[in-house]
Amino acid sequence: MTETGVWLIGARGNVATTAITGARAMARGETDTTGLVTGRAPYSKLALPDIEGFVFGGHDVRERSLLETARGLSENGVPKPDVVEEVADDLRAIDDRIETGTAINCGTAVDDLADRESLEDRLAVGEVVDQIRDDYESFGRGHDLDRLVVVNVASTEPPLEDPDRYDTREAVERAIENDDRELPASALYAYAALVDGHPYVNFTPSTGSALGGLEELARERAVPHTGRDAKTGETLVKSALAPMFAGRNLRVKAWEGHNILGNGDGKVLEDDRNKAGKIASKGDVLSSLLPDIGHNRVRIDYTPSLDDWKTAWDYIHFEGFLNTEMKMQFTWEGSDSALAAPLVLDLVRLLAHADEHDESGLQPQLASFFKAPLGVEEHNLSRQFAMLDEYVERHTTEVMSE
Amino acid sequence: MTETGVWLIGARGNVATTAITGARAMARGETDTTGLVTGRAPYSKLALPDIEGFVFGGHDVRERSLLETARGLSENGVPKPDVVEEVADDLRAIDDRIETGTAINCGTAVDDLADRESLEDRLAVGEVVDQIRDDYESFGRGHDLDRLVVVNVASTEPPLEDPDRYDTREAVERAIENDDRELPASALYAYAALVDGHPYVNFTPSTGSALGGLEELARERAVPHTGRDAKTGETLVKSALAPMFAGRNLRVKAWEGHNILGNGDGKVLEDDRNKAGKIASKGDVLSSLLPDIGHNRVRIDYTPSLDDWKTAWDYIHFEGFLNTEMKMQFTWEGSDSALAAPLVLDLVRLLAHADEHDESGLQPQLASFFKAPLGVEEHNLSRQFAMLDEYVERHTTEVMSE
Amino acid sequence: MTETGVWLIGARGNVATTAITGARAMARGETDTTGLVTGRAPYSKLALPDIEGFVFGGHDVRERSLLETARGLSENGVPKPDVVEEVADDLRAIDDRIETGTAINCGTAVDDLADRESLEDRLAVGEVVDQIRDDYESFGRGHDLDRLVVVNVASTEPPLEDPDRYDTREAVERAIENDDRELPASALYAYAALVDGHPYVNFTPSTGSALGGLEELARERAVPHTGRDAKTGETLVKSALAPMFAGRNLRVKAWEGHNILGNGDGKVLEDDRNKAGKIASKGDVLSSLLPDIGHNRVRIDYTPSLDDWKTAWDYIHFEGFLNTEMKMQFTWEGSDSALAAPLVLDLVRLLAHADEHDESGLQPQLASFFKAPLGVEEHNLSRQFAMLDEYVERHTTEVMSE
Amino acid sequence: MTETGVWLIGARGNVATTAITGARAMARGETDTTGLVTGRAPYSKLALPDIEGFVFGGHDVRERSLLETARGLSENGVPKPDVVEEVADDLRAIDDRIETGTAINCGTAVDDLADRESLEDRLAVGEVVDQIRDDYESFGRGHDLDRLVVVNVASTEPPLEDPDRYDTREAVERAIENDDRELPASALYAYAALVDGHPYVNFTPSTGSALGGLEELARERAVPHTGRDAKTGETLVKSALAPMFAGRNLRVKAWEGHNILGNGDGKVLEDDRNKAGKIASKGDVLSSLLPDIGHNRVRIDYTPSLDDWKTAWDYIHFEGFLNTEMKMQFTWEGSDSALAAPLVLDLVRLLAHADEHDESGLQPQLASFFKAPLGVEEHNLSRQFAMLDEYVERHTTEVMSE
Repeated sequence: MTETGVWLIGARGNVATTAITGARAMARGETDTTGLVTGRAPYSKLALPDIEGFVFGGHDVRERSLLETARGLSENGVPKPDVVEEVADDLRAIDDRIETGTAINCGTAVDDLADRESLEDRLAVGEVVDQIRDDYESFGRGHDLDRLVVVNVASTEPPLEDPDRYDTREAVERAIENDDRELPASALYAYAALVDGHPYVNFTPSTGSALGGLEELARERAVPHTGRDAKTGETLVKSALAPMFAGRNLRVKAWEGHNILGNGDGKVLEDDRNKAGKIASKGDVLSSLLPDIGHNRVRIDYTPSLDDWKTAWDYIHFEGFLNTEMKMQFTWEGSDSALAAPLVLDLVRLLAHADEHDESGLQPQLASFFKAPLGVEEHNLSRQFAMLDEYVERHTTEVMSE
Repeated sequence: MTETGVWLIGARGNVATTAITGARAMARGETDTTGLVTGRAPYSKLALPDIEGFVFGGHDVRERSLLETARGLSENGVPKPDVVEEVADDLRAIDDRIETGTAINCGTAVDDLADRESLEDRLAVGEVVDQIRDDYESFGRGHDLDRLVVVNVASTEPPLEDPDRYDTREAVERAIENDDRELPASALYAYAALVDGHPYVNFTPSTGSALGGLEELARERAVPHTGRDAKTGETLVKSALAPMFAGRNLRVKAWEGHNILGNGDGKVLEDDRNKAGKIASKGDVLSSLLPDIGHNRVRIDYTPSLDDWKTAWDYIHFEGFLNTEMKMQFTWEGSDSALAAPLVLDLVRLLAHADEHDESGLQPQLASFFKAPLGVEEHNLSRQFAMLDEYVERHTTEVMSE
Repeated sequence: MTETGVWLIGARGNVATTAITGARAMARGETDTTGLVTGRAPYSKLALPDIEGFVFGGHDVRERSLLETARGLSENGVPKPDVVEEVADDLRAIDDRIETGTAINCGTAVDDLADRESLEDRLAVGEVVDQIRDDYESFGRGHDLDRLVVVNVASTEPPLEDPDRYDTREAVERAIENDDRELPASALYAYAALVDGHPYVNFTPSTGSALGGLEELARERAVPHTGRDAKTGETLVKSALAPMFAGRNLRVKAWEGHNILGNGDGKVLEDDRNKAGKIASKGDVLSSLLPDIGHNRVRIDYTPSLDDWKTAWDYIHFEGFLNTEMKMQFTWEGSDSALAAPLVLDLVRLLAHADEHDESGLQPQLASFFKAPLGVEEHNLSRQFAMLDEYVERHTTEVMSE
Repeated sequence: MTETGVWLIGARGNVATTAITGARAMARGETDTTGLVTGRAPYSKLALPDIEGFVFGGHDVRERSLLETARGLSENGVPKPDVVEEVADDLRAIDDRIETGTAINCGTAVDDLADRESLEDRLAVGEVVDQIRDDYESFGRGHDLDRLVVVNVASTEPPLEDPDRYDTREAVERAIENDDRELPASALYAYAALVDGHPYVNFTPSTGSALGGLEELARERAVPHTGRDAKTGETLVKSALAPMFAGRNLRVKAWEGHNILGNGDGKVLEDDRNKAGKIASKGDVLSSLLPDIGHNRVRIDYTPSLDDWKTAWDYIHFEGFLNTEMKMQFTWEGSDSALAAPLVLDLVRLLAHADEHDESGLQPQLASFFKAPLGVEEHNLSRQFAMLDEYVERHTTEVMSE
């Protein structure tokens, strides 16, 4: 088996911390594969890199250590305190591999979180990119890695205005060269990964690799990338439930979704500009699955006491036969980190697999993981799983016939 | 187009009344196809018989007229009072075509509903069957029908004990001949339909055509039949949601389902023996979709004031990554009749289509309609729809290439 | 018995229309006293004016007739269509007694509803007041009334800035005289009522009689008045539930309330400025009952398909013994008009009673009816009812001993 | 201050374990008074014995130690693991003071839990009583207590048939003497307490002191006692909410309550006979508060994975003005032990206070604590709190004037 590195942008955030803690807890036999999509049949039959062997590193703009974050999370129950202590040494070691990153154009809400001088404070954009490439490079070399997968799990950026201006590789590179200070951090990290052939996952609604210029770059460098905005809670349920209404020809007159959460992400989303991107990708799922939906609103509010427990109430007003009005409601109470973290590990495994098999560019088989899957129009969860089933079947048949 | 007759067993019940009222309301331009699966693309492209042209008849053991039932239902909002009045003449005319039926082995709860002398009160089982066949036959002749589809929408029977004794056509026919008074009404109606080549739908959890002997008969007579227990509410949601938990490898520790309803069906289900069959098919869906489910209970209770509004609360306790316990709850408030009635019309259309195309025996493409689809193990709603998609694609391609 | 007139500000709105329709339906024996607080013991023992004898009139800035509004409401189920038709002649007759009103400082959302030229469009403020007084006066004279109770059920105004400037009767009267165009409509209607001795009810969060100068006026003219913001749904539940948490010393860490509705009120509340007043009085109930509440937010959103059905989801995160975190959630689905309308009738009866017994000024015994009861700090629903119990006991004892 | 002993019947159960753990955690400064009714104003002003000074002992029929039970509970989150370890020595010490008890007539479900030979297995009823009295006596002497309060927190017994046969003290004593083996354990414990002047609390729906003969005994011995069935969750909410519907004259057509829980109590309640008593006192609250309620059902089901987290769904179908049907639903997710335990401590304090002030017999001021308060018809939570307010006011005024 090859050595796989995992480079996390926002490495000291809740999702990264939980993913790292979980991976190390698995390595130490403290937990099982529940919640990992690649832990279940038939996906578990793929020849994927072992999570136990992942080598973690990353960028962040905060000083608070991984271990402190993990202990803070465990006060809220996830991960459990004894699990955190079991992996405390691992967390300390990984913490030493977290470099100072950039938060350029991440919004003032993210700036407030930062307690380190960010790269862009002292460097031109081109220099920031060079520094990031160096960080990736020296990490890979230092740990003798065969492959480094870069994953963006940083807080949501405000949407980039007029993204079409970065529609070609050339436009992106010119902007970097000319110290264009409007490119957001997520795109710089993505550029730095793709240009040197590192597979890239955008786990967030931020821009990441979703620029024409970066897609071109990925094609040219033959590197796989995927995104964006991981589907972890309310939207996951929507993508499972909405096809039921469509399938039965029940007309949805209104679908109200109200999300409340209290973690750092929730705080960043208090800022309306950061929230805008998130709301958009959440709303799009329904309008795609239910083209004649009457009213479709998503609210995200910050409720401090809930901490990492994202809670959603959805109210669905629909019409059936003989114009009968009916209702469905659901509430969802999930730990944001516990839902997101295993998907990070799944995506690293699956993207490493794609890279190993020279499947570059966008990865439509990974659509089930995202609210706004790049390059895929399908939002029906079951059909998205069917796409991954086919991919796996293709590869497991190959493996067997080898 | 051919003339299609629809013969409803339990023709004066809520589901039958709503289906008839809805069909006639469509014929009179009072309502649209919302809630009809065959009303949406791509199924709407199939060459199906028009609902507007359906000729209705049926059996019942109650005297209360269709119009009275429809007016009673409309007090509860479905169908609306003005719609009932628009089709009042149609209901009166159809009422004249409803014959006295049999309620043998339907349980004392159904006996309490009956206000007519049932056929079995004065006839041997063989004579009951002959009478039913005569009723089908003279209805078809009287209305110059090309095809008669028989649909069981009568109240749920207690489960038949030891059904294997009727495993062959010969065993069934011997039992009928020998006045075996343990065969339930639904099986007699199904026998009478199949033996004379009438397509048969079992919309309920009762036995119907689900006996080895009747499946053999259907094969020999080359007649299509389908069932059983239409999936209209809570179980429909389960079949859409459970695959999400399975897909994400989230382990369901407990799924509690509590249904309350207040219509005649609810009253019959108050009798524990009648309830047994219903609970079984509702519970099976989850244990099939979530093989390692920890706890799976379904309750159905009678709450008179709700009338036809079936309300369900489901509580799902599940475990994710790092053994994190999470919860989802939903409530569903649907009009039982408005949800069921269009499916009756859909199934008549689709079974007539199968018959027209000489597709006899069980009809796996109809699995999405049922809690316990005969001959199909698949309970994932999306995959069930995919089966119907394929059927439709096959037939619409044929049509186009014709 | 004396003749009681009811003058409704916003007489063609949903609440007014439902109150009038209900009163006339009672008069015609079409409905009973369910939902009327004064319809239950012990309040039913008070010598109150009969609802059947109420004479209705009012002001509005819309042309749409009462009957049209009632029919529109009945499409949504409340009142029922046949009830509306039974009282159609009454509604037509009352419609003729609705005069053009003022919507000054009611916000652009209300202006959009108006399809009549409002009084302030052509008159100075002093003239507007004179016109209103004339309208009250000629209605009373024309119908030979002993008493006219004025009730504000118009759409919510944006909050008045710096209300202290109207802290004395003299300041108010000077403002009217000097054509001060910042006084809101509700205050002008209240002034016009109080100055001529008509009891006044402010059913809404608007300013109404809640100005120091109007309280002074009411005292001087010895006229009873009450308000404000009737407690009909979610806040009613809060005022019943919050004392339970307080009583058991359970610490509420967060109480999230999300309201959705789709009627005209909902539309007006889409405007953030109109919403401000509403949110304030809704939120105050909790902060009064739970002084150490951690987080307290109320959302009101417009969901067109719900029409008059106001639906609320409340999520309560609380802490108990041993710092255990627990949760309660509720949803409330109520017809806004059916909840509000009977309270209008109750308040007219109770205020007429107070006037009859020379109990002038603020009426603390009516606190249970309001979200922000004027002159009362008590928000505990049971204690508020106890205040009315005492009032009734005092008066029924008097009656008996007379 | 005097030394107060607390003798717990069922001392190793969840409620007792949590109460003891909580009391010791308070003594050690590990938690605060949240959840304690006597911890809030104005009750906190009463001169009550300090919880920190309580001396615990008790009876049980299980061997499993307090510490083991506490650790088992902490796996489910309440109390927290570190709190349990902080008080581990205290739990060990208290465990040594737990004597073997009796489980006579507690039903087979309780017998299954027992892993000790119960007293009645080897002794006549009279001897069982003598043994219990001895246990109380030697505990009091051994710890130099001024007062011993006996609290029944054992699993619910099946209801006693024909309780009237024990309507006099003489009948009870004759039965004990004659080895009448139909008296349930809870009544024997209560007899033994009252006859020697120990205040007695029945926290459960079991018989306890609710026999005519025991009430007579308590009067004669001038000892205070109270009960029964502590109001901790769903019923607490009902007693807060139902008065709202009654107060607004909203007619409740159906109130469905569905409780699920997974702890030992839940398991005992799986036995229909044990469940009977519980359901009765839960249902009575509503029928008392809403005399014209249409349908009132309570379900309690055992859902193992929930452990101590009692979860309830309540569905309330009600009718308002113009016969409009509306709905309210709530779900309640509470830790049974965290809700119950502080009330045990509150009741000990308040009963000790009553005993100190020679207030013997039934204690109506404690009605707010119980589903079926002995000697009190009032079920309205706010009015019940008002009764305690008055008691406290009387006593605090006395104190101040002393």
